[in-house]
Amino acid sequence: MYGPGDVRVEEREDPKIEEPTDAVIRVSASCICGSDLWPYRGFDPADHQVMGHEYVGVVEEVGSAVRELEVGDFVVGSFVISDNTCEICRAGYQSKCVHGTFVAESIGTQAERARIPHADGTLVRTPEHPGPELIPSLLAASDVLGTGWFGAVAADAGPGRTVAVVGDGAVGLMGVLAARELGAERIIAMSRHADRQELARFYGATDIVEERGEAGVEKVRELTGGLGAHSVIEAVGTQESMMQAIDSARPGGHIGYVGVSHDVELPGGPLFFSTVHLHGGPAPVRRFLPDLVRRIWDREIDPGRVFDLSLPLEEAAEGYAAMDERRSIKAFLTL
Amino acid sequence: MYGPGDVRVEEREDPKIEEPTDAVIRVSASCICGSDLWPYRGFDPADHQVMGHEYVGVVEEVGSAVRELEVGDFVVGSFVISDNTCEICRAGYQSKCVHGTFVAESIGTQAERARIPHADGTLVRTPEHPGPELIPSLLAASDVLGTGWFGAVAADAGPGRTVAVVGDGAVGLMGVLAARELGAERIIAMSRHADRQELARFYGATDIVEERGEAGVEKVRELTGGLGAHSVIEAVGTQESMMQAIDSARPGGHIGYVGVSHDVELPGGPLFFSTVHLHGGPAPVRRFLPDLVRRIWDREIDPGRVFDLSLPLEEAAEGYAAMDERRSIKAFLTL
Repeated sequence: MYGPGDVRVEEREDPKIEEPTDAVIRVSASCICGSDLWPYRGFDPADHQVMGHEYVGVVEEVGSAVRELEVGDFVVGSFVISDNTCEICRAGYQSKCVHGTFVAESIGTQAERARIPHADGTLVRTPEHPGPELIPSLLAASDVLGTGWFGAVAADAGPGRTVAVVGDGAVGLMGVLAARELGAERIIAMSRHADRQELARFYGATDIVEERGEAGVEKVRELTGGLGAHSVIEAVGTQESMMQAIDSARPGGHIGYVGVSHDVELPGGPLFFSTVHLHGGPAPVRRFLPDLVRRIWDREIDPGRVFDLSLPLEEAAEGYAAMDERRSIKAFLTL
Repeated sequence: MYGPGDVRVEEREDPKIEEPTDAVIRVSASCICGSDLWPYRGFDPADHQVMGHEYVGVVEEVGSAVRELEVGDFVVGSFVISDNTCEICRAGYQSKCVHGTFVAESIGTQAERARIPHADGTLVRTPEHPGPELIPSLLAASDVLGTGWFGAVAADAGPGRTVAVVGDGAVGLMGVLAARELGAERIIAMSRHADRQELARFYGATDIVEERGEAGVEKVRELTGGLGAHSVIEAVGTQESMMQAIDSARPGGHIGYVGVSHDVELPGGPLFFSTVHLHGGPAPVRRFLPDLVRRIWDREIDPGRVFDLSLPLEEAAEGYAAMDERRSIKAFLTL
């Protein structure tokens, strides 16, 4: 990304092993994330920035200290590098690994090849090479599925719970899927776009609320006996969406917020008196990856349907434009 | 409280039963809360306001619908009225009961008598009338102990955990006690006052940190292998103390914040990237009261030591002044 709105696909030097814990992978598929739109729209800085942090691929080379992976393995990786052995990783917060780095900032996987540090701790191997029909779902696990899943776990979604989902982008839709898989009784998707509503219903939404802001909060309260939802997944990251999420939760309810926070200031008083639980941040996708890969492999879940546009890597710029203009929920990049 | 800094003890009309679920109690002891200092210092409005929300006493009269209590029972009550039967109460959030009201705003228990609505759902009876040595501890359960306990539970304090406590007032000290009772391995009390440090050690603090703000955060990190505490109890309610709490927690750590929030704005970005759990608010003391009363009755805990000044009710104004000037941690009012 040369700058906001300016995405170009160019030749870069091939990555190679630098550390003994590295792997180099040939990327089989990549995609564009809602969070890539922040710099694209000028809300985050972008100055000749490598792009992309979602990826699946085949291991081409491994460093001498890599133990779990072999050349030829098909792998899915998290959008944050993690050693998966430090105390923070062991507690399930691989996105804050003491050796953690963001793939988006340092590597850029909207590319043919990528060097993945701490390969054992970042990548998860599939049982065999997947057929092409599984690639979109496995790719989704790399971020949007893992992030939506974390949102649902952070929101304490589960049996008997009513879960409201703020945000109908790919992460929000994956939050719906995760809430269903975790056994939620009722799932309220907040969306005013027919195509996204349909996908939300496919993934398990039982109710659709088109209203936003206070009107949306009112509607969720109406649907929950005046109390608010047990669980709210926040998948946008703005002031309005955060306040909508907090106000939609019942006392003692849980908010899992996974929309990257932009210009948000949470007022202490209302938050205090709400007595909600607030948890979120960059998702520790690696925590969930082995389970998610298994669910995909066994055809229990079909997160790949979140991709509604497929383009060759060379046409990545069009994918950004389509997502920016909301012509596409999420763009898949073929290689 | 006629206004900031102006507390007077005057004759008021005796309360009587108004609803069948009411009880009228004769207050045996009351006290002054750190939160009473907010209006005293002019940070909250106060205009001829009844004061006091902590109380133990003897039931003098019950309404026709009261089932669990009898005239003559010795009771401890929460600082929030709750029916203890609604869906929110049953989920453990009695401080947000659908019929909830704050004792501080409506009743005022720095008084000889008080009408307690929803008596069955608000009050807890002791096994027998307590001896005078137990009264301070039982009174503490009414708010400061219950609030510190909630802070520790919300901060997920428990075996193997390092718990940092921000705030060395009565609630912070009770947070130390609660963390110890919940089995925390290490308890870091943040205090720069020798008398409070000593009490913190008595209640279970293993480490004292005198630094505040960023220096305090640094010190907690030093004591926790650079990672931060697993659990942080925030018992102040200011911007500085909240940020200190958030910054002192490790990724995935838990903050239980029970200091009443004043002029706090939490920056979304740092909160998001911290990946901490945030939970707090007005403590659902009623959830914990039966257990706390039992622990006090069995002499397992001695929260009453948090009172370092005892005055007759008539001299309440001096109690406020002493706490305001930090000459006293917490003032006990005898009747």
